[in-house]
Amino acid sequence: MCQIILRFRDVWKAVIIILHSGRVSKDSHKKFDFIQTILYNKLQYSLEVELKLEEKEISKAVIGRLPRYYRYLGELIDAGVERISSNDLSQSMRVTASQIRQDLNNFGGFGQQGYGYNVKYLRTEIGKILGLNQNHSMIIIGAGSLGHALANYSSFEKHGFVVTGLFDVRTELKDSAVRNIPIRMMDELEGFLKENEIEIAALTIPKSQALEVADRLVKCGIKAIWNFTHTDLNLPEDVIVESVHLSDSLMKLSYNITTYKEEHGK
Amino acid sequence: MCQIILRFRDVWKAVIIILHSGRVSKDSHKKFDFIQTILYNKLQYSLEVELKLEEKEISKAVIGRLPRYYRYLGELIDAGVERISSNDLSQSMRVTASQIRQDLNNFGGFGQQGYGYNVKYLRTEIGKILGLNQNHSMIIIGAGSLGHALANYSSFEKHGFVVTGLFDVRTELKDSAVRNIPIRMMDELEGFLKENEIEIAALTIPKSQALEVADRLVKCGIKAIWNFTHTDLNLPEDVIVESVHLSDSLMKLSYNITTYKEEHGK
Repeated sequence: MCQIILRFRDVWKAVIIILHSGRVSKDSHKKFDFIQTILYNKLQYSLEVELKLEEKEISKAVIGRLPRYYRYLGELIDAGVERISSNDLSQSMRVTASQIRQDLNNFGGFGQQGYGYNVKYLRTEIGKILGLNQNHSMIIIGAGSLGHALANYSSFEKHGFVVTGLFDVRTELKDSAVRNIPIRMMDELEGFLKENEIEIAALTIPKSQALEVADRLVKCGIKAIWNFTHTDLNLPEDVIVESVHLSDSLMKLSYNITTYKEEHGK
Repeated sequence: MCQIILRFRDVWKAVIIILHSGRVSKDSHKKFDFIQTILYNKLQYSLEVELKLEEKEISKAVIGRLPRYYRYLGELIDAGVERISSNDLSQSMRVTASQIRQDLNNFGGFGQQGYGYNVKYLRTEIGKILGLNQNHSMIIIGAGSLGHALANYSSFEKHGFVVTGLFDVRTELKDSAVRNIPIRMMDELEGFLKENEIEIAALTIPKSQALEVADRLVKCGIKAIWNFTHTDLNLPEDVIVESVHLSDSLMKLSYNITTYKEEHGK
């Protein structure tokens, strides 16, 4: 997109140069000057705004796709594939090969012309970019079904996410555990965070308690929250929040069903 | 973006009209004609390609944002707010007011200059776009912790998503229920789908069984799958799949933590 806008700028400059070349009459020259000034200013402004937006969007979109690359490369390793061309990867992932090349070029490429990608190497490198070569300690606040589900995913541990504690307010859960991870009471939270270096807190509690608990976590120095509550958390800028809004996802599904029905007259 | 491209087209047309107005000499006229033809063709082509791409991208991004609008408007209603300006909505949602206006203009606007948006009306209208004014019957395949969590969300029902059945392979779950929704065995699936009109199937089963079960569902006429398995489902094009990849989300969080640490030298 940026490239095309820049091409427009070049076109416009070319026109201006031609107009300035002196072959046109003095009268029309003045008129052009006036139109030029207005349009060129407008163009410059649009360009600046758009370029800023574009840059930001691209990187966010690429980051969003990296975990998917990582997942697919894992599947390829499981299937015994050692190397793959961007074309073959493109077919299985249903994105264009040029998209794959562009995405990976953001981080230096990793591929070799005529050889393709070494699957294991590429996955390791993407893993490094995603920070999966380090361990991340995590606690889960809210030991309901969703908290249980997250604690039960042993696959998270394979990628370095180690759940070291579950917290809840329900006293009947005291002294119980999920996968050997003890469930603690919420009044133990501050003490636990003092004694243990925890990086991520997953929030699987009702919306009504979300902000209060998030504030407590931030006060204890937690810098990353995996948010499953049905609300956005407006926290200090240095706290990283990644939200999973299940109802948003369900609504998107509903939108697509509705649109499909309308388009197919059902 | 499209608007800006269209503005470029208008600018270009204006230039062409001026050039054709006869005030320039015959010699330069010919030169311009030649440059015009080439550039205009190039421009047209870029326009067509870009417009196609943009339209698709914009609508996908807008759809992605609609559930968030719906959620925020719900919070405003709970707080007793009756109308809101795009500026105020912008501040609470942390997006620009112009983004909000642009997004909503895709569906005809809903706002009034100087008055802002009627919160209830806007929410109802967005709800209609999202298909929340209709009931959607849903089953959940996999009655593990995550299946339980989904079945327990009573808030889904408020938006028209009614869970009518849970399915699992574990015989020890037979005759049990979650929130009065009976857990059935997987061999009852085909019979159940024959007798009940089900729109959505949520998949909360291990990756290894995902494709086989999805195929069974599609054969029974299920047209929408809410996919929580750790794999993409490559299904026929008329089956709508909305995936929630929890590990992808966790990896994005990890990426942001890693980047933050690098930027702040920790």
